Amino acid sequence: MYRSHSCGALNATHINTEVTLAGWVQKSRDKGFMIWVDLRDRYGITQLIFDEQRTDKAVFEKAKSLGREFVIQVKGTVIERESKNPNMATGDIEILVSELTVLNEAMLPPFTIEDETDGGEDIRMKYRYLDIRRNPVKNALLFRHKVAMEVRNYLSELDFCEIETPYLIKSTPEGARDFVVPSRMNQGQFYALPQSPQTFKQLLMVGGMDKYFQIVKCFRDEDLRADRQPEFTQIDCEMAFVEQEDILNVFEGLTRHLLKALKGIEVDQFPRMTYDYAMKTYGNDKPDIRFDMKFGELNAVAQHKDFAVFNSAELVVGIAAPGCASYTRKEIDALIDWVKRPQIGASGMVYVKCEADGTFKSSVDKFYDQDDLKKWADATNAKAGDLILILSGNANKTRAQLSALRMEVATRLGLRKPDEFAPLWVVDFPLLEWDEESGRYHAMHHPFTSPKPEDMKLIETDPGKVRANAYDMVLNGNEIGGGSIRIHDKELQSRMFSLLGFTPEQAEAQFGFLMNAFQFGAPPHGGLAFGLDRLVAILGGQETIRDFIAFPKNNSGRDVMIDAPSAIDEAQLAELHIQLNIAK
Amino acid sequence: MYRSHSCGALNATHINTEVTLAGWVQKSRDKGFMIWVDLRDRYGITQLIFDEQRTDKAVFEKAKSLGREFVIQVKGTVIERESKNPNMATGDIEILVSELTVLNEAMLPPFTIEDETDGGEDIRMKYRYLDIRRNPVKNALLFRHKVAMEVRNYLSELDFCEIETPYLIKSTPEGARDFVVPSRMNQGQFYALPQSPQTFKQLLMVGGMDKYFQIVKCFRDEDLRADRQPEFTQIDCEMAFVEQEDILNVFEGLTRHLLKALKGIEVDQFPRMTYDYAMKTYGNDKPDIRFDMKFGELNAVAQHKDFAVFNSAELVVGIAAPGCASYTRKEIDALIDWVKRPQIGASGMVYVKCEADGTFKSSVDKFYDQDDLKKWADATNAKAGDLILILSGNANKTRAQLSALRMEVATRLGLRKPDEFAPLWVVDFPLLEWDEESGRYHAMHHPFTSPKPEDMKLIETDPGKVRANAYDMVLNGNEIGGGSIRIHDKELQSRMFSLLGFTPEQAEAQFGFLMNAFQFGAPPHGGLAFGLDRLVAILGGQETIRDFIAFPKNNSGRDVMIDAPSAIDEAQLAELHIQLNIAK
Repeated sequence: MYRSHSCGALNATHINTEVTLAGWVQKSRDKGFMIWVDLRDRYGITQLIFDEQRTDKAVFEKAKSLGREFVIQVKGTVIERESKNPNMATGDIEILVSELTVLNEAMLPPFTIEDETDGGEDIRMKYRYLDIRRNPVKNALLFRHKVAMEVRNYLSELDFCEIETPYLIKSTPEGARDFVVPSRMNQGQFYALPQSPQTFKQLLMVGGMDKYFQIVKCFRDEDLRADRQPEFTQIDCEMAFVEQEDILNVFEGLTRHLLKALKGIEVDQFPRMTYDYAMKTYGNDKPDIRFDMKFGELNAVAQHKDFAVFNSAELVVGIAAPGCASYTRKEIDALIDWVKRPQIGASGMVYVKCEADGTFKSSVDKFYDQDDLKKWADATNAKAGDLILILSGNANKTRAQLSALRMEVATRLGLRKPDEFAPLWVVDFPLLEWDEESGRYHAMHHPFTSPKPEDMKLIETDPGKVRANAYDMVLNGNEIGGGSIRIHDKELQSRMFSLLGFTPEQAEAQFGFLMNAFQFGAPPHGGLAFGLDRLVAILGGQETIRDFIAFPKNNSGRDVMIDAPSAIDEAQLAELHIQLNIAK
Repeated sequence: MYRSHSCGALNATHINTEVTLAGWVQKSRDKGFMIWVDLRDRYGITQLIFDEQRTDKAVFEKAKSLGREFVIQVKGTVIERESKNPNMATGDIEILVSELTVLNEAMLPPFTIEDETDGGEDIRMKYRYLDIRRNPVKNALLFRHKVAMEVRNYLSELDFCEIETPYLIKSTPEGARDFVVPSRMNQGQFYALPQSPQTFKQLLMVGGMDKYFQIVKCFRDEDLRADRQPEFTQIDCEMAFVEQEDILNVFEGLTRHLLKALKGIEVDQFPRMTYDYAMKTYGNDKPDIRFDMKFGELNAVAQHKDFAVFNSAELVVGIAAPGCASYTRKEIDALIDWVKRPQIGASGMVYVKCEADGTFKSSVDKFYDQDDLKKWADATNAKAGDLILILSGNANKTRAQLSALRMEVATRLGLRKPDEFAPLWVVDFPLLEWDEESGRYHAMHHPFTSPKPEDMKLIETDPGKVRANAYDMVLNGNEIGGGSIRIHDKELQSRMFSLLGFTPEQAEAQFGFLMNAFQFGAPPHGGLAFGLDRLVAILGGQETIRDFIAFPKNNSGRDVMIDAPSAIDEAQLAELHIQLNIAK
């Protein structure tokens, strides 16, 4: 062992102990007659002292040559510091060094190894192994491990069994694009990497393993939006002989446990709202309920005057930004510019200031009187001092725009507090959604999701109205998990595939194994999956997942550190029975 | 919830309780006026009783229609059994059923769902979800989960951090064949699936995460020998600031913990032997030391007479099969036939019976006298009553043959007891091995393994003699883990690549990122990896891994259940910038 203690372990109780430490030179200060070196490892920083008086001359000289990030081993004595640092675990002591070994030299790193680094995203990714030395990244990875351990131990205690499902499976074009793997031994054939272990976990239920989970990598070959990764990690779960209520209870329990164990936060029973309610009240299916600003629909109280913009709109809807009546014209214009950005796409915004004296001042005063505006305030639950922000137009689009505005206002007002956690369930998702492009229904969750029995009567006449036994867990405006009760009956599953535009032959070729399995005694079952990357990031108080992944890929799906993907040689291609087909 | 209790939970303390159970019909016995049904779930079997007298007529009639593997839900009362079954956890009670719901019917399964099934390997794999209902497979999967949890908790307690490394990495033709994944977004380029996270765990050490582990899938596109899988799971570990001794101690501790926690077995410090000793004494580098039969080299005591076979041999070597002097001519001939099989390839076998009276009877009595044979007995440590088996020829081949014979004899004698565990370390592996085919050295472990400093002087003059800081953990004749101290210096790593026949350009293209990283302060480090599939199988007392994998592939790399790999469509190929290149 190169060390007797870590660089975070020593304190006043160790004074006069002989110790051996090893680590990286964080920095050194050379005062001529005295050299201080901050020695860093994963566990902390310990101050080393080399002293012209007390240190062997050769050692002292060698200490002068130490550069940043050199890897060294020192032996020495723990002594009391003259000027203590109460902010450091090791701040009471320092090591008077008697022996110094340079284990490895280091070139100057391309960015500073500090909590606040001078390195940009690109250079940090290229030298990710240096980035990991920084506390924010290191701590994110340690935190991720802790979350995963808590999840495993919690579920294991409840008799869940972690079962590894295969990575080399079959391509099923439904859903996102698969990554595929040419087979050398099966000429002209390909494996696919799993987008999720969905069918396997269902087969495990058929196999009687009634409580399954797995923390597992999944793969989607999609054009990467910001903060998406081609490979990502799920906490994948499934249970048999359960109803939706049972699943919500188990995984609400898990999430409550994580909040308590990792953040020390006790959360009551999670609120539940239907998909319809969420869409109407927050404009999206993953509302951030750490703050209010619920949507107030204003059609009834805004379409009776001569304001053509509102009169011609399918929906007029507003929110009350708390305490923002004092916004200046400039601040309001900034918000108007913000909603008019192409990413949001609103054509304008109406506002109403709710003054402290109970009067209203709006941008549409020439169309609406105080009584009208009072009704708007009531509908949006605006108090004196609030600023009502109103958008109008096509219902779906306007809701999406107002939802984005709501989040933006909350951010500006500091209402999205990273140390506050507001989980909820959104339930009763639609089974299907209409896809304009392909002119057919798509499964909103996936093709294995069970319709609500009471809505089955609509399935041929009005499929878009059928609700599913599907649910999402939402945390702070992010969907962190989602799932459903599955179909466990061959007939219903076939009918679903046909609704989704599969021919019987296609359904059989792709999912015949699952429908066959359903004929051999499939129990009722359901489950859900959490996105671990995002769950960890949110619990860690961050919005982006990248620092919670050790070696992430960039937006082109490249690992810039190892320079992958890369060309492979002709012999390898030939063995795999493929050749390149490059567009000129 | 479809049940109040599992099918393994009820006993005499529950008598008169109203319960709801759900599960599969294991079997039913219809006596006309009385029907018994064994209801099975993951947790056990509970006997249901339907009684013409006491059961509602409609329920009774429905019970008559139940077939094997139907999924049912019943409500009823726990009553005392008339004839108790002390071999069953629930053997004191049965359920007098009042309500019966068929949750799903089942076709007759293609093999019996019993511990000893009538289903062959192929059909069991095709219907793996039914196979998993059988206790041996179900228990193997539950056991695997338990092993993985013990590993995680043990290492986690020691401050190891589980870190997920990427699955989409870069192809490095050194080593086994890679599975590759064409990139859609990077035309003409490919990811590779990792054969191990080797370089990433080393980069984590450079990044300061000084205790890493990961239970992780790895991939090798090799022609599958029996009991190999294209995807397999490793317990992958790495530590920084350690020497070989530290790594052996940590992972010996882990293994000792597993044996205690899972098997209730206390093991003392593991024996260690050098690779050279293992090869000379057991003929291979993963000796089964649950039994003795050490090799005795006989050149000195067998090459002084006129027996040309021995005189012309590079090596004459024997083992003493305990208590086998009483073997009949027929039994001995069977062993001779066994070593002559093409898989073993010996040209013959000499034997010596060590009689109870201290005399010897051999198949070469016309060349050797009793004094000679006494010396052979001494060299092979044979006692009265033992049978000495002797092979001769080329040293390496003969050792391999005798090693195989040693295992075969042990199997025949019942010395390979599945409930006995004899772990050991084999250390001081050669750094390189000569490959006749390519006419160059290959890395025996991998190219990142550090030579022993004291052998460095041989590296240019006699590279084959250089020993590595490499070690294997062996359990009951299986290598269950192996690792090494790594190179952490760019110069030495370059030299190693050059020894292995890489041009500087090839080394840079494939591993430049690692050598670069070594220049930024790489600490001394090393690690190892356990093969989880095999570890679990051996701990579970089995020699084959297949039942410890939920969804294994067959010897052609196919998943016969889902029928993968399979063809993909032209559009998918085109998007990936590849086309098929099928040999006519």
